[in-house]
Amino acid sequence: MVQDQNLRVLLARRPTGAPTPEDFSIVSDAVSAPAPGDVLVQNLFLSLDPYMRGRMNDAKSYVPPIQIGEVMGGGAVGRVIRSESPDFAQGDIVEGLLGWQQFAVAKAKLLRKIDPTLAPVSTALGVLGMPGLTAYFGLLDLGKPVPTDTVVVSAASGAVGSLVGQIAKRLGCRTVGVVGSADKAQYITDELGYDAAINYRTAGNLRKEIRAAAPDGVNVYFDNVGGPVTDAVFENLAQRARIVICGQISQYNSTEQELGPRNLSRILVTRSRIEGFIVFDYADRYPQGLKDLSGWLANGEIKYKEDIVKGLENAPAAFIGLLEGKNFGKLLVQIAD
Amino acid sequence: MVQDQNLRVLLARRPTGAPTPEDFSIVSDAVSAPAPGDVLVQNLFLSLDPYMRGRMNDAKSYVPPIQIGEVMGGGAVGRVIRSESPDFAQGDIVEGLLGWQQFAVAKAKLLRKIDPTLAPVSTALGVLGMPGLTAYFGLLDLGKPVPTDTVVVSAASGAVGSLVGQIAKRLGCRTVGVVGSADKAQYITDELGYDAAINYRTAGNLRKEIRAAAPDGVNVYFDNVGGPVTDAVFENLAQRARIVICGQISQYNSTEQELGPRNLSRILVTRSRIEGFIVFDYADRYPQGLKDLSGWLANGEIKYKEDIVKGLENAPAAFIGLLEGKNFGKLLVQIAD
Repeated sequence: MVQDQNLRVLLARRPTGAPTPEDFSIVSDAVSAPAPGDVLVQNLFLSLDPYMRGRMNDAKSYVPPIQIGEVMGGGAVGRVIRSESPDFAQGDIVEGLLGWQQFAVAKAKLLRKIDPTLAPVSTALGVLGMPGLTAYFGLLDLGKPVPTDTVVVSAASGAVGSLVGQIAKRLGCRTVGVVGSADKAQYITDELGYDAAINYRTAGNLRKEIRAAAPDGVNVYFDNVGGPVTDAVFENLAQRARIVICGQISQYNSTEQELGPRNLSRILVTRSRIEGFIVFDYADRYPQGLKDLSGWLANGEIKYKEDIVKGLENAPAAFIGLLEGKNFGKLLVQIAD
Repeated sequence: MVQDQNLRVLLARRPTGAPTPEDFSIVSDAVSAPAPGDVLVQNLFLSLDPYMRGRMNDAKSYVPPIQIGEVMGGGAVGRVIRSESPDFAQGDIVEGLLGWQQFAVAKAKLLRKIDPTLAPVSTALGVLGMPGLTAYFGLLDLGKPVPTDTVVVSAASGAVGSLVGQIAKRLGCRTVGVVGSADKAQYITDELGYDAAINYRTAGNLRKEIRAAAPDGVNVYFDNVGGPVTDAVFENLAQRARIVICGQISQYNSTEQELGPRNLSRILVTRSRIEGFIVFDYADRYPQGLKDLSGWLANGEIKYKEDIVKGLENAPAAFIGLLEGKNFGKLLVQIAD
């Protein structure tokens, strides 16, 4: 084994509003030994994702909260360094909920084996992992885009949004992305093929900017953000619009319930549909999604961008920045080479 | 012909907020003669419905606005007194968008013939008409209730809500109605079979009252009201709840957009679905709905209640009261015997 100490990031206290470095503690423990059926994994890349903010609260949600003093949860890709399972051998690359730590002991049956010859292993946390599957099933199953549709995506340069736009474009839709910087606006139009980009931080009147970019109305809205961006999109819905609620990052750090315009009258007159999306519900169809995404990636139909921070000790600051939109591309922490 | 003068209620000006009597004008014109293909109808009952408030605004919606000086639009049941169409004979009872007036000339193809031996003709404006079909398709097609579901209905004693609760109960659901008076609360539990009633005007904490009435969460919410009642229901959604947005009467008289709690995070974590409903979209399936509703009515499985105001000249005041929840049952204006 390379080392016998395991650096780990724990939840030190529950954040009030935006998380601060003091909400996390970094400890060094002895590496545990795997029991029969388990494997010991050295983490290579840790995924940082907005949903983690919800798990820091003591609130019932679709996953239980992280307890104080527990390791922060999260998806990671790592290398098997000791296996007590016939399903994995030393050296195998695996992906699973391995947490914010250098080493993890995990049940073999909860791990997915990754073929490192197909694509960089980090993509198992992005385009060929949870964010990719989220974009794929959320857009296709709930958004149900057809070629004449205008598809609007919030957080359009992010891990999920960047793929939603590309998959919609591939189908022939008009694609409009809402982002938080000029660089991101340029990136999504120049690199990802979005037809239009709106920088919500500098937009004068978001409603009008969306109307200009989607003059026939918004047929599909893939929402990662919520708040005023979403309010403005609701004012531009076409008849029978489909709204996929995938994330509401603008609300995650709120300490009190923010008020907004009531939008249900607009849903009524447009006969639109709003639906909440959680990718876990599609687990039995992941193979289909990964097959399509891998194919599109291999033939150059979709691109991805990673924002890699080095060193597990930098994970808290990177995560705090993620919630402020400071990352540019899929945010990863590289834990080992 | 009984008379040659036609009393009519026109839109005199567009209301700001709640309509007032001055927003309407009552005029007396000569009765028009039907052209070929038309019939002349003497209206017997006029239906007053919340959607009419939207048509008084100069705003684009799913039906065009009524113009100033035009007769107020609305469904009515009447008797054919002269027919220039082979499809109708003098004396036939018909239903259609005949307006707030004593006599109407209408295109024969836009009228529905009513069999007066099946049920009182006024039911063609209620349980066997648009409100009944709204309850039927809205609940069954969008709400998709199953017997173990808890179904919550706002405006539960109204023309639509009273039927939603009875249809859901018939399927074996637990039914909870939200109403605006103690009399209505008693009526929906004692007469309509609702399992629980909540009077929103006297409720201390709506969220808690709904939780007490729907302890396993709300699986289906049929919303006619919007506003704080709906906010409280959203705080009690079960997983995969279906929310049918049929009306938002609490908002119709608003002069500015009212703010409310943002509810999309809750839709996300419960994977719920909100969908706007307009009954016209189901026109090709009306026969199926009317067949079922007629059958249930005939065998006593569903009941209805009418609130009948006599005299067309009283229609404006009755309509103003409807928007304040003053009616008790399906609101009708009896125009002739």
